[in-house]
Amino acid sequence: MKDAAQLNENEKTWERLVVTYTVLERAREIELGQAGVSLPQAEVLHFLKTAKEPLTPSKLARFMHREPHTASGLLDRMEKQGLVKKTKDLKRKNMVRVTLTKKGEEAFKRQVNVRTVRDITSCLSSKELVTLNELLDKLYSKGIGLLREMQPYPYGTTPE
Amino acid sequence: MKDAAQLNENEKTWERLVVTYTVLERAREIELGQAGVSLPQAEVLHFLKTAKEPLTPSKLARFMHREPHTASGLLDRMEKQGLVKKTKDLKRKNMVRVTLTKKGEEAFKRQVNVRTVRDITSCLSSKELVTLNELLDKLYSKGIGLLREMQPYPYGTTPE
Repeated sequence: MKDAAQLNENEKTWERLVVTYTVLERAREIELGQAGVSLPQAEVLHFLKTAKEPLTPSKLARFMHREPHTASGLLDRMEKQGLVKKTKDLKRKNMVRVTLTKKGEEAFKRQVNVRTVRDITSCLSSKELVTLNELLDKLYSKGIGLLREMQPYPYGTTPE
Repeated sequence: MKDAAQLNENEKTWERLVVTYTVLERAREIELGQAGVSLPQAEVLHFLKTAKEPLTPSKLARFMHREPHTASGLLDRMEKQGLVKKTKDLKRKNMVRVTLTKKGEEAFKRQVNVRTVRDITSCLSSKELVTLNELLDKLYSKGIGLLREMQPYPYGTTPE
């Protein structure tokens, strides 16, 4: 019988991906800590800053691929810290918009300025960078496909 | 002035890496949930199963690149669930060994058998798989180097 701990080539690459990402994430976490921002907070700041449309808590949760209650708790804490503001939409009262406050803008700038880990791929050649992007795009498409199969209606939502 | 939200090529790849990994991690989380195991638990089971030496809680924390108190809380919960056992070393009384219980072995097997996400790279050609491994190895080395610079003595440990 095949030993359960024996991995095939794909599984070995999966372990390698997990270990590599864990190391990079830990380094990014330390770097962000120096700017007084946590990893999930940095993600929220990034989405709020770069979004082309007004964001609601549930839209943010979808962008972040997190469950709504996780995103909502995160936003509550960030609002208490004065980084974001939640306002009711004037036209649709049940719609909440999330925006960056001045303090949030400043935190975003601090976060953008700690960039050693975000620049990690500068250790690759430009050709390698292109290849990495292509490979990531393939894995992303495949991953999104799997996620849709696993959760056709994510987080209990159903089509209207 | 350059817009703070404007990203260079390396930063774009970093965002791509984060988004891709988040999607894959979420899919793995759902898949593991079907086997009744959480992501960090799966990691512990994997290390305990594949380690070539007896593992202590602090060694596990290092392997997982987590802070000792995070790993320790995780192990406490896993012990309560009967997945792992902590025993004092007979020779060095202050040394704790972590081992898999029978229930932990079973959970490991269940986890190994949900493999759609772990096999995600089967969407790549064998040449692409080799390239991905090489790129991940480069990023890993660079990441470990950064981590050592940031934390020469991780988690408050100092050299003896």
